[in-house]
Amino acid sequence: MINNRTADLVLSGRHLLPSWRQEDLLADGAVAISGDTIVAVGERTRLCADYPDARHMHEPHGLIMPGLINTHTHAAMSCLRGLADDLPLMSWLQNHIFPVEAHLDEELVYWASLLSMAEMIKSGTTACNDMYLFSKAVARAAEHSAMRCWLGEVLYDFDSPCYGELANGFVYVAELLAAYQDHPLITITINPHGVYTCSPDLLNRCAELAEQHDTLLHIHLSETDSEVATCRERYGVSPVHHLGALGVLCSRVVAAHCVKLSEADMELLAEHDVQVSHCIQSNLKLASGIAPIPALIERGLSVSLGSDGSASNNDVDLFAEMTSVAQTHKAILNDPTVMDASTVLHAATQAGADALGAGSSLGTLEPGKKADLIVIDLDQPHLTPLYNMASQLVYAVRGADVIHSVIGGRLVMRDRHLLTIDEPEVLARMRGSAARVQALRDASRRH
Amino acid sequence: MINNRTADLVLSGRHLLPSWRQEDLLADGAVAISGDTIVAVGERTRLCADYPDARHMHEPHGLIMPGLINTHTHAAMSCLRGLADDLPLMSWLQNHIFPVEAHLDEELVYWASLLSMAEMIKSGTTACNDMYLFSKAVARAAEHSAMRCWLGEVLYDFDSPCYGELANGFVYVAELLAAYQDHPLITITINPHGVYTCSPDLLNRCAELAEQHDTLLHIHLSETDSEVATCRERYGVSPVHHLGALGVLCSRVVAAHCVKLSEADMELLAEHDVQVSHCIQSNLKLASGIAPIPALIERGLSVSLGSDGSASNNDVDLFAEMTSVAQTHKAILNDPTVMDASTVLHAATQAGADALGAGSSLGTLEPGKKADLIVIDLDQPHLTPLYNMASQLVYAVRGADVIHSVIGGRLVMRDRHLLTIDEPEVLARMRGSAARVQALRDASRRH
Repeated sequence: MINNRTADLVLSGRHLLPSWRQEDLLADGAVAISGDTIVAVGERTRLCADYPDARHMHEPHGLIMPGLINTHTHAAMSCLRGLADDLPLMSWLQNHIFPVEAHLDEELVYWASLLSMAEMIKSGTTACNDMYLFSKAVARAAEHSAMRCWLGEVLYDFDSPCYGELANGFVYVAELLAAYQDHPLITITINPHGVYTCSPDLLNRCAELAEQHDTLLHIHLSETDSEVATCRERYGVSPVHHLGALGVLCSRVVAAHCVKLSEADMELLAEHDVQVSHCIQSNLKLASGIAPIPALIERGLSVSLGSDGSASNNDVDLFAEMTSVAQTHKAILNDPTVMDASTVLHAATQAGADALGAGSSLGTLEPGKKADLIVIDLDQPHLTPLYNMASQLVYAVRGADVIHSVIGGRLVMRDRHLLTIDEPEVLARMRGSAARVQALRDASRRH
Repeated sequence: MINNRTADLVLSGRHLLPSWRQEDLLADGAVAISGDTIVAVGERTRLCADYPDARHMHEPHGLIMPGLINTHTHAAMSCLRGLADDLPLMSWLQNHIFPVEAHLDEELVYWASLLSMAEMIKSGTTACNDMYLFSKAVARAAEHSAMRCWLGEVLYDFDSPCYGELANGFVYVAELLAAYQDHPLITITINPHGVYTCSPDLLNRCAELAEQHDTLLHIHLSETDSEVATCRERYGVSPVHHLGALGVLCSRVVAAHCVKLSEADMELLAEHDVQVSHCIQSNLKLASGIAPIPALIERGLSVSLGSDGSASNNDVDLFAEMTSVAQTHKAILNDPTVMDASTVLHAATQAGADALGAGSSLGTLEPGKKADLIVIDLDQPHLTPLYNMASQLVYAVRGADVIHSVIGGRLVMRDRHLLTIDEPEVLARMRGSAARVQALRDASRRH
């Protein structure tokens, strides 16, 4: 520290929670940031003295904490938010979601992704792991918003509205990989859709590509009974064992959902150190079921949180997701001690970083880590009194309580005003697109 | 209408949803209010022409809708929010909650109730049904906040920190009944705690009192396995059948929780038209279980929503409660069509009014009903685009999106600024009390 006494910004608050651990809570704490990196964490008075030339931002009622990490998103599905709900899964997909997705284009994906990123920043998320169509547009939105984003183009056996036939999909992915090599905020990942939509050959190619480029393989896994049944019918084994047999399972696999798991599936996931993204609100709303998360954690698996798309949630607020995770598993297991506040906070922060292969650079506030952090306004009725910060964050704080957000050292929201995204323009664009989206859906219903 | 062409206020917005039914949605709608009553609902231009002398408030991005109704609260438990969580039920109660409750006083209950009322108003609730100790202080807080409030003093066989021995409890209740007779906003109810804490004699006296004063009997019912086991042991029947045998069950009974119900229990509740208050987040967090709400609704029972106290939730945001209700039952029943958005919105509005015996004066926006309404700011990323208002309200809107609130014709919040409650003072008082609450808990731990 003595050797690095320059900082651009010292951000301080009433409290600082540098990790998911309540015992790390520091009163009158501060973070010093140089460039995109944290250079010091400690008491405000000390940091202000140590970095006298840094700009100083102080929030008297604020809590400074790590930004939340959302490990399974389809950001552009914000354009489908509330288009159809409360329907049988197949009718919802075939009559409402697919007809629109078949006619998406770069422009709509760009604005819809930007909308989700605005929503993520405004609810405390600083990094996400996105899988969707037209992912070059998602990348453009990420660049524009200055969010930290892992993202990839979804690949499957049938033709894509984005790239046409599969061969072109690999070209598209190669172009993405080349364009964002060494980007400070954007990492390109490999995204086979799932075991029921991707042939073994495609899954193998994806695994090779992920290894070759040292990046994540992001896939939907064991989300529904129907997926498991289809896989068993085709390959005689569960989705997890199918991936295991292909040699695809490893620690670079981010497996979204993992709702329908046998004991043997759990063992295999643990053996290969697979990264599980738990999407509880989407799983509840689509009636997929409730993933056996406490059992996975007990087996040593790392579990992070995902919102899934806004068509099945219908928001991307990870604070609300934390509440659902902490509350629901207790009732399912008839045990109020499971998924305690610290465990859930860990899932939304450090475990998210671990899942994305960024455990040493994100997830907590420590010198040397990237400066991805948020400030919560604690001066509110629903956050008073305050006995335990971890409990407050998981059970009472809402996305709307986040007032400032810093990603890679850059202030992207101040006093709930977005600094990288023109919010009124995005809202106006998306309102304009709603009629078109509805028309696409309605056109398909008439056929 | 022609005969009543005076109004004090015309409140208009981009949209008006006068009920829980999506099909009632009106663009550019308005409500005209005279005194505490709605005198007209319709298009803005027409109402502005019909009531030219009324004050006019217009919210260009606003949705006007009925205020939410919370049918099971312990408002003052806000002072225990986050004091202890994630513990086995008995340890939580005996080592954390009871030691503090044994030393509560009027002053603390007053400020803690006011805190919850501030939180309720700020999250869209305009009426609540409260059960607690020192309920004269709760009533004072309700008067001060100008919230609509049903409330009663909790009665049980053992001595109370408020009134001492039970005989005094009935005096306390009589005083409350006398003091708030014909109050425009406050209704006193009769509150036996539960079948495991109240003798048959006490339950009978409460039922007589409720009938005599034509008011509600508000009770915890079938919340946990342990309650059911205790009741079976003592009386040989389930809690519901125990109340049935005593002749207590009727439509004036608001039964909170109703988690553990047999088929026969459900039949009996339906037969007597008992009002069920569903407290899903509290039931999840305490691992009590998940009430069979879709089955109750199918049997024709009216189900409303309750937050329970903030010690087991940990907030009183009914918008978050609606999301949990809509999502959770789908996964439990493996059916994405149950608890659709309109059903859940009905539970939070008209069913709440029905439960409190106020179905003809609250729950929707109609001429002749009381003017209890809220305005939501729709101009936000997480509420864009907008396809279906009921879906948006249940799955995406949060308490913090409520900008104005009107109770009994009086504006109690404008632009999120509370007009009846001095929010900074309440927060400061409660911060001051936190140390005392913690000391009470810790003192009991040392003994």
